Amino acid sequence: MNNTPHAPVTVIGLGLMGQALAGAFLKAGHPTTVWNRTPAKAAALVAAGARSAPTLGDALGASPLTIVCLTDYDAVYELLGANGVEPDPTTPIDTTPIDTTPIDTTLINLTSGRAGQAREAAEWAERRGARYLDGAIMAIPSGIGTAEAVILHSGPEQVFAEHASTLGALGTVTHLGADPGLASLYDVAGLAMMWSVLNAWLQGTALLAKAGVDAATYAPFARQIAAGVADWLPGYAEQIDKGSFPAEVAALETDARAMEHLIEESEAMGVNAELPRLIKAMADRAIAAGHGGEQYPVLIEEFGKP
Amino acid sequence: MNNTPHAPVTVIGLGLMGQALAGAFLKAGHPTTVWNRTPAKAAALVAAGARSAPTLGDALGASPLTIVCLTDYDAVYELLGANGVEPDPTTPIDTTPIDTTPIDTTLINLTSGRAGQAREAAEWAERRGARYLDGAIMAIPSGIGTAEAVILHSGPEQVFAEHASTLGALGTVTHLGADPGLASLYDVAGLAMMWSVLNAWLQGTALLAKAGVDAATYAPFARQIAAGVADWLPGYAEQIDKGSFPAEVAALETDARAMEHLIEESEAMGVNAELPRLIKAMADRAIAAGHGGEQYPVLIEEFGKP
Repeated sequence: MNNTPHAPVTVIGLGLMGQALAGAFLKAGHPTTVWNRTPAKAAALVAAGARSAPTLGDALGASPLTIVCLTDYDAVYELLGANGVEPDPTTPIDTTPIDTTPIDTTLINLTSGRAGQAREAAEWAERRGARYLDGAIMAIPSGIGTAEAVILHSGPEQVFAEHASTLGALGTVTHLGADPGLASLYDVAGLAMMWSVLNAWLQGTALLAKAGVDAATYAPFARQIAAGVADWLPGYAEQIDKGSFPAEVAALETDARAMEHLIEESEAMGVNAELPRLIKAMADRAIAAGHGGEQYPVLIEEFGKP
Repeated sequence: MNNTPHAPVTVIGLGLMGQALAGAFLKAGHPTTVWNRTPAKAAALVAAGARSAPTLGDALGASPLTIVCLTDYDAVYELLGANGVEPDPTTPIDTTPIDTTPIDTTLINLTSGRAGQAREAAEWAERRGARYLDGAIMAIPSGIGTAEAVILHSGPEQVFAEHASTLGALGTVTHLGADPGLASLYDVAGLAMMWSVLNAWLQGTALLAKAGVDAATYAPFARQIAAGVADWLPGYAEQIDKGSFPAEVAALETDARAMEHLIEESEAMGVNAELPRLIKAMADRAIAAGHGGEQYPVLIEEFGKP
């Protein structure tokens, strides 16, 4: 019943993102209960057909599926009356009684946090009797409800399967695996890719600006390279999984010479050379470790070290 | 006549790349003259139909189009008998007579170097009476002769147009503009993108490996993010050209909080955090400069500084 088109849903936390999530459920026809510490934030949603729960307990009891979207995990624990983190022995003992009221809903926590926090929250939810999935939203509020909004979930496969149809109202939903930490790991890994593509593009744009080339002229070239290299990743991943890095395309020491050109060119053109220097430093370390004759993905050994 | 399918071509420098270039011309039916300081390297090409020039002067006179592909610009000047670089006043005066023999061919210099070296070489070639294009090969030798081999050219548009058809035997050839330095700038900018996509993928792969996810499982996700972000670049480039960075998607200070998550997660999972820290350091500087409420491409101001 939960995954019928009109399964009831609760949304807790009505920041910009929470409002967008509740709005998408309403638009898809789900009876939607909302709750926020400041009830005024529910006004527009109520006008659009949402029910504003009078208490948090009412909100948690209203639907088989409850989405939580707060500022951070501390806010989640503060609100839901518990703390998944081990007590810090250096601070005075917190004598606030821990709320142990059973929670009978599936909690999907879309609050940003680290993998360890997601795993702790899953354990806390289990102690309270709730089913739990962790999630990460790779979208901005205005994208919610469209296929462009990618929402990652991790936790028990069966729990995801029960609600996948309802969650589909939010965007493109994916289940990554049983470890509740996976959603946040994929999230930060994806963000690292996003910022890295943007930074490399800015590096090139800055270099070419010094030669009078405008950003719009350079961008299609950068786009083509980024998309082209993206296509190599599945093949390169096989080298990593095999732990074997034959220099089919180029040896790392050949790359390192071209990296030196990038540094020299950045310095000669008067643009920031920190990114080029970091690129070369990582490669130099792998070469020093004896991998100069192997292919680029051998750098995984350097990236995997603290 | 030069751009008929059978225009004669000379290739000077028969390293792995030079041999691949000459081989592609031969395969496309061009009468091909080759020259190398060590003539033995021409043997396989001669067997395939190339003519080995007895002298460098003969090689330079044999074709309206001459490709030069050597180790570096010093090798080019050493071989062609000149030096485009201003004399260094701190070293003894070089008394070697400068070769001023006119060169009557179009030189396309595919030797790797910096933009400034390409511009100097263009001036040197002009003094010797040659037409000159600088070029950069974004391919490995085995890719030459296929559409996947991207070869960038810069210098006078008309010189490129005369030989574009012949050059097409090598791969996908592009003309970037009249400034001879552009090919090498696009080349290093493209390489910066390549290494950045690879490094971000390695960062994510290392993070996920700590959660037991293998590289092949993660790679399609990284590929999708990289290709998706690549598609934003033309739009973001407009912000840079306008010098206006409204936070349509997200404000930089919101990004910075997620960057902190990436650093914390990398440290918590025991993987290298240098790339995450550099990403955040660049953003923090832009925020400190008052751009926290603007969108990511405002970082161009930081990348554009020495």
